[in-house]
Amino acid sequence: MTDPPRRRRGRPRAGESSGREAILAAATAEFETHGYDAATVRAIAARAGVDPALVHHHFGTKADLFGAVVNAPMRPDKDLPAILAGDPDQIGAGIVRYVLTTWDRPEVRRRGVALLRTAVGTKAGSPLLVGFLRREMLGQVSRVIPGPDAELRATLVASQIAGLLMTRYVLALEPIASTPVEDVVAWVGPTIQRYVSD
Amino acid sequence: MTDPPRRRRGRPRAGESSGREAILAAATAEFETHGYDAATVRAIAARAGVDPALVHHHFGTKADLFGAVVNAPMRPDKDLPAILAGDPDQIGAGIVRYVLTTWDRPEVRRRGVALLRTAVGTKAGSPLLVGFLRREMLGQVSRVIPGPDAELRATLVASQIAGLLMTRYVLALEPIASTPVEDVVAWVGPTIQRYVSD
Repeated sequence: MTDPPRRRRGRPRAGESSGREAILAAATAEFETHGYDAATVRAIAARAGVDPALVHHHFGTKADLFGAVVNAPMRPDKDLPAILAGDPDQIGAGIVRYVLTTWDRPEVRRRGVALLRTAVGTKAGSPLLVGFLRREMLGQVSRVIPGPDAELRATLVASQIAGLLMTRYVLALEPIASTPVEDVVAWVGPTIQRYVSD
Repeated sequence: MTDPPRRRRGRPRAGESSGREAILAAATAEFETHGYDAATVRAIAARAGVDPALVHHHFGTKADLFGAVVNAPMRPDKDLPAILAGDPDQIGAGIVRYVLTTWDRPEVRRRGVALLRTAVGTKAGSPLLVGFLRREMLGQVSRVIPGPDAELRATLVASQIAGLLMTRYVLALEPIASTPVEDVVAWVGPTIQRYVSD
């Protein structure tokens, strides 16, 4: 994590920086030990020796804190609701366009590829990312899908998006790696649309 | 590589085992140095100090040799032709069924996940696998696709298959990880079919 963490507005107070660092270190340890779902802001605060309110003050929700810990290049927990609440016929195109326009930014791409390499390349790295995706992304997607297959369909969405990230950004497989965003949206949008609505 | 290499038929000759090992070591070095496309059986033989005919005798084609080097869990170069030459309307289902029935075997899954973790998790591991996939898989698929978009469509196929391998086998994301093969074929087959035939 080489980028500076996001700062709240206002003047820094004495000792604030070390408090933030202690919370980040505690959060990293709790996430690694217990996984995303079981980690709690309360336990993170206790490990850091601060009040839970201070964790929320500095970092917001547990998802925000996880985003800060992994230096998250994309925040589906914050960005998906608007796409999922929009035109139901445009959810597939909207998700693909959101992912591609976000990851096409060099800084996001750099951090995203590094995060995926860690999550996929090491056995220990996978469960934490899976926990975050399950809670903050798949849950949202499956709630807009009708019928008993909702959870399977949400993971089918994840499979196509994961493969798009792998081929376009991690492996840089041509020509999909340099195809204009809207051309990829035209091809992959209907795939996602079929998975969410049939 | 812990599994024994495949043996040609017949009695082993004195020194054969060390010759095979020398060829495998030379092939590993040539593939790593030059990539899959640029590596040649001639250069591998020269590096191993043997005649190129002996390389072919022990290992077959360059694709066979690469398969032996990476202990390949799946050989699309050998298995795809029959699927691609069959009923054009069944290519999508055929590819998905082939991938899943192959990877659902525990031994294939174990080696495949290890190979994907290496290929994705390390920057050095990616180009070699990409080179093999491009030459031995994408080339075959794009040749059966009509129109100027053939290469893009082939990489779209790769994106969905890569994501399926990631979610079902590497990340073991439920419920897609334990959904019966034919249910996944029914969902993902039409995606692949649309990418190859529209």
